[in-house]
Amino acid sequence: MDIATRVWSHKWKIDPIVRSLIDTDFYKLLMCQSVFRNNPDTQVTFSLINRSSSIRLADLIDEGELREQLDHIRSLSLSRGESTWLRGNTFYGKRQMFRPDFMEWFEALRLPDYHLEKRDGQYELTFEGSWPEVMMWEIPALAVLMELRGRAVLHDMGRFELQVLYARAMTKLWGKVENLRDIPGLKIADFGTRRRHSFLWQDWCVQAMCEGLGGAFVGTSNCLIAKSRDLEAIGTNAHELPMVYAALAESDAALAQAPYQVLADWHEEHDGNLRIILPDTYGTEGFLRNAPDWLAGWTGIRIDSGDPAAGAETAIRWWRERGEDPTQKMVIFSDGLEVDKIRELHQQFAGRCRPSFGWGTLLTNDFRGLTEGDALAPFSLVCKAVSANGRPTVKLSDNPNKAMGPADEIARYKRVFGVGAQDRMDVIV
Amino acid sequence: MDIATRVWSHKWKIDPIVRSLIDTDFYKLLMCQSVFRNNPDTQVTFSLINRSSSIRLADLIDEGELREQLDHIRSLSLSRGESTWLRGNTFYGKRQMFRPDFMEWFEALRLPDYHLEKRDGQYELTFEGSWPEVMMWEIPALAVLMELRGRAVLHDMGRFELQVLYARAMTKLWGKVENLRDIPGLKIADFGTRRRHSFLWQDWCVQAMCEGLGGAFVGTSNCLIAKSRDLEAIGTNAHELPMVYAALAESDAALAQAPYQVLADWHEEHDGNLRIILPDTYGTEGFLRNAPDWLAGWTGIRIDSGDPAAGAETAIRWWRERGEDPTQKMVIFSDGLEVDKIRELHQQFAGRCRPSFGWGTLLTNDFRGLTEGDALAPFSLVCKAVSANGRPTVKLSDNPNKAMGPADEIARYKRVFGVGAQDRMDVIV
Repeated sequence: MDIATRVWSHKWKIDPIVRSLIDTDFYKLLMCQSVFRNNPDTQVTFSLINRSSSIRLADLIDEGELREQLDHIRSLSLSRGESTWLRGNTFYGKRQMFRPDFMEWFEALRLPDYHLEKRDGQYELTFEGSWPEVMMWEIPALAVLMELRGRAVLHDMGRFELQVLYARAMTKLWGKVENLRDIPGLKIADFGTRRRHSFLWQDWCVQAMCEGLGGAFVGTSNCLIAKSRDLEAIGTNAHELPMVYAALAESDAALAQAPYQVLADWHEEHDGNLRIILPDTYGTEGFLRNAPDWLAGWTGIRIDSGDPAAGAETAIRWWRERGEDPTQKMVIFSDGLEVDKIRELHQQFAGRCRPSFGWGTLLTNDFRGLTEGDALAPFSLVCKAVSANGRPTVKLSDNPNKAMGPADEIARYKRVFGVGAQDRMDVIV
Repeated sequence: MDIATRVWSHKWKIDPIVRSLIDTDFYKLLMCQSVFRNNPDTQVTFSLINRSSSIRLADLIDEGELREQLDHIRSLSLSRGESTWLRGNTFYGKRQMFRPDFMEWFEALRLPDYHLEKRDGQYELTFEGSWPEVMMWEIPALAVLMELRGRAVLHDMGRFELQVLYARAMTKLWGKVENLRDIPGLKIADFGTRRRHSFLWQDWCVQAMCEGLGGAFVGTSNCLIAKSRDLEAIGTNAHELPMVYAALAESDAALAQAPYQVLADWHEEHDGNLRIILPDTYGTEGFLRNAPDWLAGWTGIRIDSGDPAAGAETAIRWWRERGEDPTQKMVIFSDGLEVDKIRELHQQFAGRCRPSFGWGTLLTNDFRGLTEGDALAPFSLVCKAVSANGRPTVKLSDNPNKAMGPADEIARYKRVFGVGAQDRMDVIV
């Protein structure tokens, strides 16, 4: 036994869940740099939303512990090694992805304050302030809540029970890895930071993917793990950009253009594999129908809601209509993936486009069936921009169960973006 | 990382498999004391016998490594703490189970030399000398060969593969423990030292049984683990006593009496739960038919070959014929057990006698299905007395596939003990 390590561990008042500002998704940093350049003064509010209302987080998680974890995150700043890695590393084949002015800002960043209260067995957790600062809360806030919920369940288990639990979880995950192993030409990445069981478990899952899949595992969205395990950091952009741009639009006409304005700004900043369209914020069909031609030249698309096969077929049709060769286009599936679905989508689309997978919750948090009452099963927690400069944001997506925003605004957006009937799909993870 | 521990580990020329003279089965010590008292000068030869000839041990295991492990065992002597535990502990409710003269001899014991050569892909490993010394080789020799075979397989596996392997093995074992958990009134012990995957693994299996079964887990046959985990050391006597007594018999009449002479000596030394009949050495049916009445008063019987349910039924009939109450009698099943068999036997016999289980190979070495080509599946290795004072030993058992000895002697024993037709049963473990 290493006495010093043990004593050192005991000295911590808490066992911090998030220990680094780059223990976050890579796309957050790319988007943050874009926001820092284009919209640094936009005031936003981000809010936690638990879509699984049966999981009463405020009953499970002690408020004091939650505050300690959030306060700890506010004490973090970029370390010298982290800064060096961000400044000096090659991302997506490009050096100096992060501009010096952004890095200076990031090095000085401390996360802004949070507002926390309990209501109806849930936590209301909100963050207000300038967009580039507030947006950095999303991933660590989610990771903290997911892990504190897990810790609450693990707290009453014995040392041996815990050992068996993790043996079972490892066995389960490795079974998935072996299942994926024989899919020829598979490309898959870890997208599981926000919903992970814990940091250590995500780190183990990433190692399992490396060991088991070799080159088929293309990297992780988690910057800290990418840094420590010498892997590619993976990710491009997310719904918060079109949501905030849309909220800021002064007219219906400007609103209709907002999603394209996001991508125009992105187009200026990035090329190659970073040019990935996320089309579903206000309905994929309408978005593609009304898209400018230059967008069809982008490298690929990410399918994050609705029926994934239908979404990919829509994209393939659209590329053909715009004179593009779909077989050269990347299609990244990232919504609610599990092994069978990955296998099925790969079989359906390999050769017709370049399918790729961003595997989240069921990679880094599949403890289903491993505890009594399934108390560690993952659930659907998000942290979203709910307003920008005082105006509410709206998300429609290709699944009405994932829609958010005030009812009248949702109706207006549906009208502006020409969204018709949509299929409801259960949101499990 | 604890640098000192790591450096210390590196200093070992070998990683010893057996690190203590009490890393052996408890019944060996009881029998050794009996032999030390009654037959100290008998000269015996013990020999390794691999019943699974398809496992070519000499191809798998390096001879130099094997010699190093055996030489290491020869360097061992009883430690002060071990001696104190044997002298001072209560075994089967009795203090000072081990007499002072035996303990003095044991404290001075170093294991005698061995003879090792390769033949036809197998190792010929024999031990010659006085019975009390040579008999102490059996368990460590088996443990060394089992573990070296395992190490040979594990040698080419990566760190991560190993982690997954043990996660799977833990998951598998814990599944068995959970399965056994709901059998009311179950009594089960670890008998898995000789065929264990490794010492650390046996130790883990014992902890799993403790954690999962509580009081239903009555103890372990392994003295070192019983000592370190504060458990009951379990075991009574084995075939080597009647085999050597029989080989020493000067006439057919003396041979017919030899198995009863063993138990007469045992009767003088032990009472209560240590009075367990092992009837199958030369056929259970004949043994019970011809047994003296005082033997029917013993506490129970151990069923170690043949169809276990048939053996238990035979014993129950026999007790009834002798005017004993079978419901008060212990029936210990110890041959080739697996969860389903344990469950079935318990259901059949609970209430009709006091069933109990000595679980060996498939408790401490069930790696079936966990590696490619099943290279870690257990196999049937024994180390037996093959001669005593120059005369060959014979074992018939209730399964002709477990019989051993020269053909003419087997025929003679069958005649003397009146053994008729026997059912052949596969010997897997």
